[in-house]
Amino acid sequence: MEPELPEPEPLTTLIESLRCLPGVGLRSARRMAYHLLQHDLRGAEQLSHALATAVAGLRHCSRCNGFSEDDICVTCANPKRDPTLLCVVETPADQNMIESSHGYRGLYYVLMGRLAPLEGVGPQALQFDRLLERAADGVVREVILATNFTAEGETTAHYLAELLRSRGLAVSRLARGVPAGSELEYVDAGTIAWALMERRGA
Amino acid sequence: MEPELPEPEPLTTLIESLRCLPGVGLRSARRMAYHLLQHDLRGAEQLSHALATAVAGLRHCSRCNGFSEDDICVTCANPKRDPTLLCVVETPADQNMIESSHGYRGLYYVLMGRLAPLEGVGPQALQFDRLLERAADGVVREVILATNFTAEGETTAHYLAELLRSRGLAVSRLARGVPAGSELEYVDAGTIAWALMERRGA
Ligand SMILES: [Zn+2]
Ligand SMILES: [Zn+2]
Repeated sequence: MEPELPEPEPLTTLIESLRCLPGVGLRSARRMAYHLLQHDLRGAEQLSHALATAVAGLRHCSRCNGFSEDDICVTCANPKRDPTLLCVVETPADQNMIESSHGYRGLYYVLMGRLAPLEGVGPQALQFDRLLERAADGVVREVILATNFTAEGETTAHYLAELLRSRGLAVSRLARGVPAGSELEYVDAGTIAWALMERRGA
Repeated sequence: MEPELPEPEPLTTLIESLRCLPGVGLRSARRMAYHLLQHDLRGAEQLSHALATAVAGLRHCSRCNGFSEDDICVTCANPKRDPTLLCVVETPADQNMIESSHGYRGLYYVLMGRLAPLEGVGPQALQFDRLLERAADGVVREVILATNFTAEGETTAHYLAELLRSRGLAVSRLARGVPAGSELEYVDAGTIAWALMERRGA
């Protein structure tokens, strides 16, 4: 009996290719493939095109390491931004969040990750030397560490703080405290503890 | 101040396009886009190509409704299969599972879904008339309903059983019972109840 696959080759390949997406196993990949082919051919075509366009059209900004269509991104090239402030974030999504607060007009450096020794992500993988070079341009006066307030984000911030301070740069960290608009009853105890320690005159 | 998006357009478009995948919200789409662009450009290119190839190269088999590169799929075109048996499954994945059991040599009909009134999926959406026409070819003698043993799969099976029987076709359902190799202690009570009801002479 000839070995016979009921699944046509383009379907098998599509399912296999969808597994390159983080968090997508075989079952999800199948479900995605069936959904696209059965109900959203247009979405599949758009995704195909968007992937090709992004791969071909995006690079890392030579100044902030964020994704950019040009050698220097729109934010870094904006003369209205304050070049003496450099805010270090883990991802472009974090940069978006800070931008949406309308509370910051300086520049950014995007790590594209955080220290995660257990996953083998160290200072080398994150190219900390590029950040150090960027921060030491003679114009930057303060580096604001805005990595996440998770264990790994904190570790990254501590590590970078020492590195940057040893180069004579002023280093600050986003304030910890009770989120705006929240009721104390629903804030976790660790956050309350920090807010107490870092309390300010009222 | 000009409205300024820190995110380049191809990245925004990619994130938006990834959301056409079922179960992928904005946060997952972002995570996927960053991962591909940062760590797996080759995977992104392959996925782009696989999507385009699948959209252009796949259609529904005119006999079994499964995905196929040709008008009639490999399984339906195989003269060694028994054309008097027609097994109705919900998805190509279910067909794969039955094939891998090596216990079936008949043909298939793939519903590409199941009755789900709450989601607005009725007999019309599933094109039950196509199945009826296929089953009434004069060659099929028995239709084996192999929809899932979930509430929706059972509903679909009951509905199809009546429809097919009213056309004079013999209809059967996969046997329910204790899974091969399982210890009774770990089998759920409903399955045990079914296995008792459908017990056979030993
Ligand atoms: Zn930049
Ligand atoms: Zn077929």
